[in-house]
Amino acid sequence: MSVTSDTVGQHGEKELIDRIAAIIGKSFRHDVLISIGDDTAVVRGSGDARLLYTCDMQVQGVHFDLSVITPYQLGRRAMAVNLSDMAAMGAEPQYALVSIAVPSSLAVTDFEELFKGMKRIGDEYGTAIIGGNLSSSAGNFVIDVFLTGRAARKVYTRSGAKVGDDIYVTGSLGGSLAGLQAMGAFGKKAVDQYRDLVAKHLEPIPRLRVSSLLAQYDIVTAMTDVSDGLSTDLAHICEASGVGAEIQLKGVPIHNELAAFAQATGVDPIPMALHGGEEYELLFTSKAGSEAVLSEIARQSSVPITAIGRVVERESGLRLIDGENVTALEPKGWSHFGSGNR
Amino acid sequence: MSVTSDTVGQHGEKELIDRIAAIIGKSFRHDVLISIGDDTAVVRGSGDARLLYTCDMQVQGVHFDLSVITPYQLGRRAMAVNLSDMAAMGAEPQYALVSIAVPSSLAVTDFEELFKGMKRIGDEYGTAIIGGNLSSSAGNFVIDVFLTGRAARKVYTRSGAKVGDDIYVTGSLGGSLAGLQAMGAFGKKAVDQYRDLVAKHLEPIPRLRVSSLLAQYDIVTAMTDVSDGLSTDLAHICEASGVGAEIQLKGVPIHNELAAFAQATGVDPIPMALHGGEEYELLFTSKAGSEAVLSEIARQSSVPITAIGRVVERESGLRLIDGENVTALEPKGWSHFGSGNR
Repeated sequence: MSVTSDTVGQHGEKELIDRIAAIIGKSFRHDVLISIGDDTAVVRGSGDARLLYTCDMQVQGVHFDLSVITPYQLGRRAMAVNLSDMAAMGAEPQYALVSIAVPSSLAVTDFEELFKGMKRIGDEYGTAIIGGNLSSSAGNFVIDVFLTGRAARKVYTRSGAKVGDDIYVTGSLGGSLAGLQAMGAFGKKAVDQYRDLVAKHLEPIPRLRVSSLLAQYDIVTAMTDVSDGLSTDLAHICEASGVGAEIQLKGVPIHNELAAFAQATGVDPIPMALHGGEEYELLFTSKAGSEAVLSEIARQSSVPITAIGRVVERESGLRLIDGENVTALEPKGWSHFGSGNR
Repeated sequence: MSVTSDTVGQHGEKELIDRIAAIIGKSFRHDVLISIGDDTAVVRGSGDARLLYTCDMQVQGVHFDLSVITPYQLGRRAMAVNLSDMAAMGAEPQYALVSIAVPSSLAVTDFEELFKGMKRIGDEYGTAIIGGNLSSSAGNFVIDVFLTGRAARKVYTRSGAKVGDDIYVTGSLGGSLAGLQAMGAFGKKAVDQYRDLVAKHLEPIPRLRVSSLLAQYDIVTAMTDVSDGLSTDLAHICEASGVGAEIQLKGVPIHNELAAFAQATGVDPIPMALHGGEEYELLFTSKAGSEAVLSEIARQSSVPITAIGRVVERESGLRLIDGENVTALEPKGWSHFGSGNR
């Protein structure tokens, strides 16, 4: 490696991805429908079908800490975050490949627990682990899951939001970051005291059942999952769709254990709900007037779906409405490199 | 992680993979044709088509050393080893996803060179990079490439070898390990002195053109690529096919620069050719009497194809014939964990 002061650590994740996209260029393969820049890549399948591909790498010391997550939970989570990407596209997951780099010191029982966790959640969502790669590691433990998926007819991307659409989110927000902080502050005791927050962080539930219903009713105009944080993921939709957004603060569904945690620790729950990442909820836009259908989908899936704002002209940017108070909603979610969790 | 003396480092790669296979079980998806245990996974596509999936992780300190490989070569190589897996199945590569965990200290120019190397070899073999995942790394640099492929009708696995078939290998053997050793012994000077050996290690050529012709003539009964070493990869074919093999030592094509390197350093070239890994040549079996067709394929592809032995009854095991001298050919190629390069 050349010695230089211009390192990847000095650049934001987005800029680095833009540099990759510039090198890779537009695909010479005409069957590629979506490349870098959405939750998954999409290629043309036979007939109207779409084939989807995604991957997500979990790196020890960056994404997980084995003093707080069990190997079973880690395996489950590594698979869940990929399943969530398929949910974000309105697709059905199919096959997974698992690459792992494992330090020699890992206990064999832990190694097996990791795969049991992956297998369990795979089974739950009709996804088969069909291959992978096993390597020793001179350093950290790394797990990379590749997931394929299929959509019968269409996929839902970040780029279809139109001015006037309503903005919705499934479940609640802020819980995952609070769970992480609770474990940092209270260690293993947090698991008893803030059970739901900790579970929200360690055992995310991919919203595939809601997604499947949303696709069935074809009610979504743009969609993504909340992996980087509401503000950042909403900015992704706005950028891809060429629109702005107004979020009503009072509409944002805050995790029901977060208030107690915030009171005990003195943190402000609002920024946690607005910017906290790794929630794996669905964030989507839908034409105005979709409330009745969405209520039915929420009922059928037993997952809350909450209206949190509406799509506006691009020039208005991203705004947060708190009664009379209107402020800019800056994307402050997670970014690898650059300033990290900004 | 629990504290125990039973760690993954005490087990061989094969045993660990068997444990994964036991946990994952036979797929509940009937469209899965080949799961763990071949060069790629294979699922049913539309009509007679087969869809193939593979991944291969390159870990700093295990697979590469940035003091000898350039980032461009590293990117090229990370893609090449996956392309080689598609060649081993007689399939055409299609799309790649790239996951990387990058230390913050990596120079941006090196980061870009990595992707330029991947893009270049992808273009060469009709493979588009369509997505991936970028993470920071608290430790080592890790690159994981996921590759999809397609076969119009059938794939070639490790399991079709029949008693009486001839055994063939493309190109030559021993060069990659010698190239690695040359760089270890002579550093950058090796690049000038043993140019072909070093290139064989740093810039492997996936044998996709030969593979495509082999598939076209449908002349292969079993196939794999030489990634772990001839002895180990042949053992994989024998185990999967339920057969034994006899290798004629005088038939094994030894890399043409290896003799000079062996003389200069006092190493024995024979074990290097028999057991050295990361060659990415094709090792395959074919019905007796295929010589004429294989000569034609060698001519069309400009890649040598050499007969090195024949398939025998399982009970005979793997044997090495050196004139009158017959010895057991032990699989001594690369294994992660356990005894490493045994």
